Amino acid sequence: MNSIKFKNNRLYYLDQKELPLREVWRECRNLRDGFQATRDLQIRGAPLIGVFAAYCVCIHANNMDLKKEDFLKNLRYDIAYLKTCRPTAVNLAWALNRIEKVIEKNSKDSVQQIKQALLKEAKAIHAEDVALCERMGNFGAKLIKKGDRILTHCNTGALATSGKGTALAVVFKAKELNKDIYVYADETRPLLQGSRLTAWELMKKKIPSSVICDNTAAYLMQKNQVNKVFVGADRIASNGDTANKIGTYSIAVLSKYHKIPFYVVAPFSSFDLSIKSGKQIPIEERSGSEVKKVLNKLYVAPKAAKTISPAFDVTPHKLITAIVTDRGLVYPPYTKNIRKIFGV
Amino acid sequence: MNSIKFKNNRLYYLDQKELPLREVWRECRNLRDGFQATRDLQIRGAPLIGVFAAYCVCIHANNMDLKKEDFLKNLRYDIAYLKTCRPTAVNLAWALNRIEKVIEKNSKDSVQQIKQALLKEAKAIHAEDVALCERMGNFGAKLIKKGDRILTHCNTGALATSGKGTALAVVFKAKELNKDIYVYADETRPLLQGSRLTAWELMKKKIPSSVICDNTAAYLMQKNQVNKVFVGADRIASNGDTANKIGTYSIAVLSKYHKIPFYVVAPFSSFDLSIKSGKQIPIEERSGSEVKKVLNKLYVAPKAAKTISPAFDVTPHKLITAIVTDRGLVYPPYTKNIRKIFGV
Repeated sequence: MNSIKFKNNRLYYLDQKELPLREVWRECRNLRDGFQATRDLQIRGAPLIGVFAAYCVCIHANNMDLKKEDFLKNLRYDIAYLKTCRPTAVNLAWALNRIEKVIEKNSKDSVQQIKQALLKEAKAIHAEDVALCERMGNFGAKLIKKGDRILTHCNTGALATSGKGTALAVVFKAKELNKDIYVYADETRPLLQGSRLTAWELMKKKIPSSVICDNTAAYLMQKNQVNKVFVGADRIASNGDTANKIGTYSIAVLSKYHKIPFYVVAPFSSFDLSIKSGKQIPIEERSGSEVKKVLNKLYVAPKAAKTISPAFDVTPHKLITAIVTDRGLVYPPYTKNIRKIFGV
Repeated sequence: MNSIKFKNNRLYYLDQKELPLREVWRECRNLRDGFQATRDLQIRGAPLIGVFAAYCVCIHANNMDLKKEDFLKNLRYDIAYLKTCRPTAVNLAWALNRIEKVIEKNSKDSVQQIKQALLKEAKAIHAEDVALCERMGNFGAKLIKKGDRILTHCNTGALATSGKGTALAVVFKAKELNKDIYVYADETRPLLQGSRLTAWELMKKKIPSSVICDNTAAYLMQKNQVNKVFVGADRIASNGDTANKIGTYSIAVLSKYHKIPFYVVAPFSSFDLSIKSGKQIPIEERSGSEVKKVLNKLYVAPKAAKTISPAFDVTPHKLITAIVTDRGLVYPPYTKNIRKIFGV
């Protein structure tokens, strides 16, 4: 399963806004296409956005038939513009910073050589993302026992990365190892990434699963139907506090109450060791229309109603059983063990 | 604010499926209209369904121009049929049982006299419901302090009863007393009674409020934005265990963790002293289409996805701070104090 394809110097992507009802592949023909697709969430998931943006720069470069000076000037300007399409996604800036370094390093070469160097770097970023997912999947699957019933939140699979995913990579690996798992996918209001995307991925991989409303997780826990929770992360502070999709903190508290292990799965690039705790992570407040008008199509509240619609919440480290990274498992005490696993 | 009107021997109801975007009043002209409106949730909320059904029988009786023997035969048969339109709503059977008793008691009278007796009983049921709501509101409002920020779930207001409501009656009373409250309304997936109906009622009454996704309650609690929770009940066992709309148990656990008082508001008719604990309350599993296709209009999951969609969950009594009834407040130990307040 792939969410993007780069073939014969053309970039294609699966439009995630059309899922799960239609599988529509679109071509990203230029920088504007890429900007729009990312901002409109046709392409989403922090790791995937980074890989897609790197390829998008290659397409853009190939489209330009300019002398070197103008080529470089335009390219630098347009990359800076592309970075702004989703300012909170860490991996977008991270991937484009790598692309910019390649431009500077090769700026003495011919336009053709620079184009080749850009493509090489984009492919490297892509390959690395695939490898990180594999490693998280392998480490995380060791935590799963035969017959485990796993709850997950939002979408953390092949649609969120260019590989197998983060939390869902663990699930996929467990399936490969015939661990006979069952997965509950929180629908994840307001944007429904769980019911639209995670359910779709699980069905594609023939993993037995059910979609539940977010408010039903506690009911299943009460009935001993959930025995492990795996979620992704948008940013992890030095002390292990984890920002992730709104609703994650709720599940963490419910897991604690029901004595269910709660695992976060994230690659090294999701850790922000420049901040001490989750208190320093800014929480993006999104438009109330996402709550009031489902998928921008159906009103489910008075148009004038006020809303509170944070995109993320922060789960304190004390509620996290372990963090699955591409370097291995990290257990408490997190401040010490996170520094240790990343060798800093 | 009313959700039904009985005027000049005609029965009108506010179609709750059209809310909040349109306020459409419809006439219930016969038994079939009443059956359909209740089953399709145009009319909902346990107390309201009972009052509406009682009036519906009056309309039906008035439509019949039959000799007494046939009149009684048809009436008895049709009431039994009407009881089946929503088998889990306790108040429907409760109200129709009262109507049946009136028929038996007056079966020696003329058809015209029976019709008059039916109407008198329907009006009595209606008036009692209004009075119960008032009493719950008054008792509950004593728990609310100036500036309280209250979380509620589902719809428990004027749309769920023929009076002010249960949990929302408490909120309305607090507003009348100028207690300067703020209310968060859980949207309450899958049928969105919170965002569609509660938000609409709160706005009508000019009570400052916000709609939140169900998964956002914990976030607000973490930020000390909620300091009391009020919910309704569908059935309360002898020991205080309470069945209510799915998601209620989740809020109860989150309230416990954040040390926030959690109150249930329900009239005497919601108590089932024939059962010892919540374990004996059957939980209705509803159609997965309610989860996958929002308001039967918009697919938000793969059509073939499996779902778990319980309509209710059970909150253990140990998570409940107090129960607000029409007879007063009940505190733990519940088994003793519930019997005491109802004098049994």
